[in-house]
Amino acid sequence: MPTYATKGKAFDRDMNYIPDRITKVEGHSQDPYDGGELDVPTWPVEPGRYRLVAARACPWANRAIIVRTLLGLEDVVSLGLTGPTHDVRSWTFDLDPGGVDPVLGYERLQQAYFARFPDYPRGITVPAMVDVPTRAVVTNDFPWITHDLFFEWRDHHRPDAPDLWPDDCREEMEEVMRRVFTEVNNGVYRCGFAGSQEAYDAAYDRLWTALDWLEERLADRRYLMGEAITEADVRLFTTLVRFDPVYHGHFKCNRNKLSEMPVLWAYARDLFQTPGFGETIDFEQIKRHYYVVHEDINPTGIVPKGPDLAGWHAPHGRERLARSR
Amino acid sequence: MPTYATKGKAFDRDMNYIPDRITKVEGHSQDPYDGGELDVPTWPVEPGRYRLVAARACPWANRAIIVRTLLGLEDVVSLGLTGPTHDVRSWTFDLDPGGVDPVLGYERLQQAYFARFPDYPRGITVPAMVDVPTRAVVTNDFPWITHDLFFEWRDHHRPDAPDLWPDDCREEMEEVMRRVFTEVNNGVYRCGFAGSQEAYDAAYDRLWTALDWLEERLADRRYLMGEAITEADVRLFTTLVRFDPVYHGHFKCNRNKLSEMPVLWAYARDLFQTPGFGETIDFEQIKRHYYVVHEDINPTGIVPKGPDLAGWHAPHGRERLARSR
Repeated sequence: MPTYATKGKAFDRDMNYIPDRITKVEGHSQDPYDGGELDVPTWPVEPGRYRLVAARACPWANRAIIVRTLLGLEDVVSLGLTGPTHDVRSWTFDLDPGGVDPVLGYERLQQAYFARFPDYPRGITVPAMVDVPTRAVVTNDFPWITHDLFFEWRDHHRPDAPDLWPDDCREEMEEVMRRVFTEVNNGVYRCGFAGSQEAYDAAYDRLWTALDWLEERLADRRYLMGEAITEADVRLFTTLVRFDPVYHGHFKCNRNKLSEMPVLWAYARDLFQTPGFGETIDFEQIKRHYYVVHEDINPTGIVPKGPDLAGWHAPHGRERLARSR
Repeated sequence: MPTYATKGKAFDRDMNYIPDRITKVEGHSQDPYDGGELDVPTWPVEPGRYRLVAARACPWANRAIIVRTLLGLEDVVSLGLTGPTHDVRSWTFDLDPGGVDPVLGYERLQQAYFARFPDYPRGITVPAMVDVPTRAVVTNDFPWITHDLFFEWRDHHRPDAPDLWPDDCREEMEEVMRRVFTEVNNGVYRCGFAGSQEAYDAAYDRLWTALDWLEERLADRRYLMGEAITEADVRLFTTLVRFDPVYHGHFKCNRNKLSEMPVLWAYARDLFQTPGFGETIDFEQIKRHYYVVHEDINPTGIVPKGPDLAGWHAPHGRERLARSR
């Protein structure tokens, strides 16, 4: 049985990913903020060459699905979707006809990793960018995948694509994203996979400190960085949308439901109702993923029927914040 | 490891209890509704003779603690309290100095059961009435314990004790209590201990059908039977008060929190704020009990810090319902 919570230990995410980047210019980043020469292998931007493999269940993969849609890259980078559950070895293409990804011809995402590194020793994670000609994984380094979809693929964005990484607030946005990552995106996992009461208690306090900060920050800002949606919102959204269905109960992040945090709940609904966000969400897949895969914290494998999700479509009233600034 | 959920099976509560009764007249019940001769062993009502052993954590025991207080029987029937957790064998007096009940001299409630039946084969449950002279359990048949505290101990009630079993609506009250027991009191356990997805799904639907019925019934009635508190309210309260801290997450009864059901939430707060109810509740003990004891559904043993419980003291506005009828 795979174990996610290690007795007596706090949760520590393995942040070692395949660091390759897909860039417009070989060995070079187009991002004016942290651009310059790259000391990682780079692959050329080339429409039709790569396949983004994601899972609707996974918050890290959800980022890439949303950004690809917001930027209008659907015809440029194809999308393969695994099912919501996986065994200890791999995500699988069990939703596809015959259980095989129609482009890669694989049953298991692991095959793309092994095509690149026959003895790949780490977790088989989504999102992963796969080189279609060689059917080998290029990178699974999720923060860079969305970063590069924005900066490196600009020539292929739709004409009215949003500026997800605005220059004028970049430094603050990096700080916000860092805090959202450590305290919220990863913070919920720190609660759920805590191996001791002490580790859990500390994780819970950290998480709620951050959520209270966000509740305050978003009270007079429509989006995290102000009037327009940025990458920071995408990254926060994918955790918030999973909060009541999964993190509140399964990960014991239960001081409040998201729906009891008036500002965050309206903010999350606002994004959910924005084209490119809500239609990427499959609550059934999300619940199945967490409750079935984490056998060590939910040994019965039973997936809750709740919560009632009707509220996601209710008016959010946040348009006034954009106008008032 | 004790198991509470049995794989592939629906939960079935063992309803075999020690059927003895404590009555005013030997072999006879004072209850005009279902009174008459009894075919179970009876013990005489006698102030100071019996000790009610309960646990603040347990909803079935909580009933008896509340009824004893409402009727003013504190000086007539003494109260022993076990700690919130127990092993597969017994509840223990670990909260008492030296870990020993000061009246019975026992470390484990099991000892009172064995004093009566040396090979007692069933679960050691609370509430239990214990005969102090022989230190032997008299009965653990919880619905009859509160029934008899009302009908058999009437001579010892405080002068203004409430009429918990009013004659004029007795038949309907029995129906309501039956439905509350099978669908709600036991219904939450049916969700939590379901051994298959199918059993859980069916249990969840039954539970929410009943909670929706109660939400409607209580919309224009202050209490279940109208203007005054009855035994039926005591029995519903002990489940509602545990709903958000335990049943919502741990038992996956998560369509809504109690606090999202406006009528039931105000009703529960009304009772909580009534003398005899709220002061019997220890949310920390309640959470520890469920999350620590049910190792098979919460193997990490981690007890959630949430939910935020401040709302229990908020005004409920239900006084108007009593006046308007």
